[in-house]
Amino acid sequence: MPRRSEHSLDEIRALALDAVEDLVASHGPTAISARKVAAQIGYTVGMLYHVFDNVDDLVLQANARLVDQLARANEAAAAGNRPQRVIARMAHNYLSLARQAPARWQLVFVHTMRDGRPVPDWYRQRTDRLFALVEEQLQRLAPRRRPAAAALAARTLWSSVHGICLLAVSDKLDIGGSTSAEKALDSLLTHYLGSWAQSR
Amino acid sequence: MPRRSEHSLDEIRALALDAVEDLVASHGPTAISARKVAAQIGYTVGMLYHVFDNVDDLVLQANARLVDQLARANEAAAAGNRPQRVIARMAHNYLSLARQAPARWQLVFVHTMRDGRPVPDWYRQRTDRLFALVEEQLQRLAPRRRPAAAALAARTLWSSVHGICLLAVSDKLDIGGSTSAEKALDSLLTHYLGSWAQSR
Repeated sequence: MPRRSEHSLDEIRALALDAVEDLVASHGPTAISARKVAAQIGYTVGMLYHVFDNVDDLVLQANARLVDQLARANEAAAAGNRPQRVIARMAHNYLSLARQAPARWQLVFVHTMRDGRPVPDWYRQRTDRLFALVEEQLQRLAPRRRPAAAALAARTLWSSVHGICLLAVSDKLDIGGSTSAEKALDSLLTHYLGSWAQSR
Repeated sequence: MPRRSEHSLDEIRALALDAVEDLVASHGPTAISARKVAAQIGYTVGMLYHVFDNVDDLVLQANARLVDQLARANEAAAAGNRPQRVIARMAHNYLSLARQAPARWQLVFVHTMRDGRPVPDWYRQRTDRLFALVEEQLQRLAPRRRPAAAALAARTLWSSVHGICLLAVSDKLDIGGSTSAEKALDSLLTHYLGSWAQSR
């Protein structure tokens, strides 16, 4: 039975985002539909579309919570340490988050916009912030290198870290078996950053 | 209408594996069921289970085709080149395969065994062979380093390459935008291998 007037729109928004997280945790990252989320919180689909533009908006707002959680952890890691150490902490924060909430974490990557629409600017700004945090540390590590070099290195490292975390979480390719994800992350960062900082 | 006696068991096996590839290419890596594959080739589900142990066996045999295709390309790359160049070619082979057949390639990673059963030895040997090819080149690059170090480096590189290719294929995180996957692969290999070969 749909509820009426029990919550403010902001509260309905928060309930719906919690419901996305619960559904994904229980049934995997492809389990989201407006109908299921509405049913879970006891409101109509019409009310859901009063609060969110569409399903993409609902999923992106849920994903933004995770992106922001990582950004906060990475900002805390940035305080007063050597840049190599900071980047290593950021990578391990990423792994912790992937392990802690594997399905929610995968939703960030599994989600694609309906009808080939572009990702909205507000969301892109949130993910850009994550890259900017890594680029800042790379610039501290090698102040003379150009911003374009730091941008490429940040994206190379980020995708590499993502691959290691993904294979660790999904228990593939022997990462997690005899090779631990932690060792692979440390090996990646030691060698990549060691060489990158010294090249021109 | 199920067909009878038109094909040998080997032919039915090949038809079924082709059908898996077609279904995945058209409907994505989660589209596989015994019922759909049987319908596509015009045989009963019973006949399918006469040729394959179960759905896992069907999917793994389809995945093994892709793994073998990559192994052949990587073996060809290994002939008569400097190890760093060989490893770079292997990484670019991986990217080509991911771009050429993104859904089939993702099926290799999306697939998990039913009821938590272990991956069978015959399949594990096929994927181990891919790692062995990389480890061989790492040993050529740094003959004094211990096999355990080459094993960790092969797994670190492989997962990193996987992350770059995955984000490139799914058009995430700006890889494929201003940063090309090719540039990210080259950056990864140059810096990682440059440092790894010189350390002890």
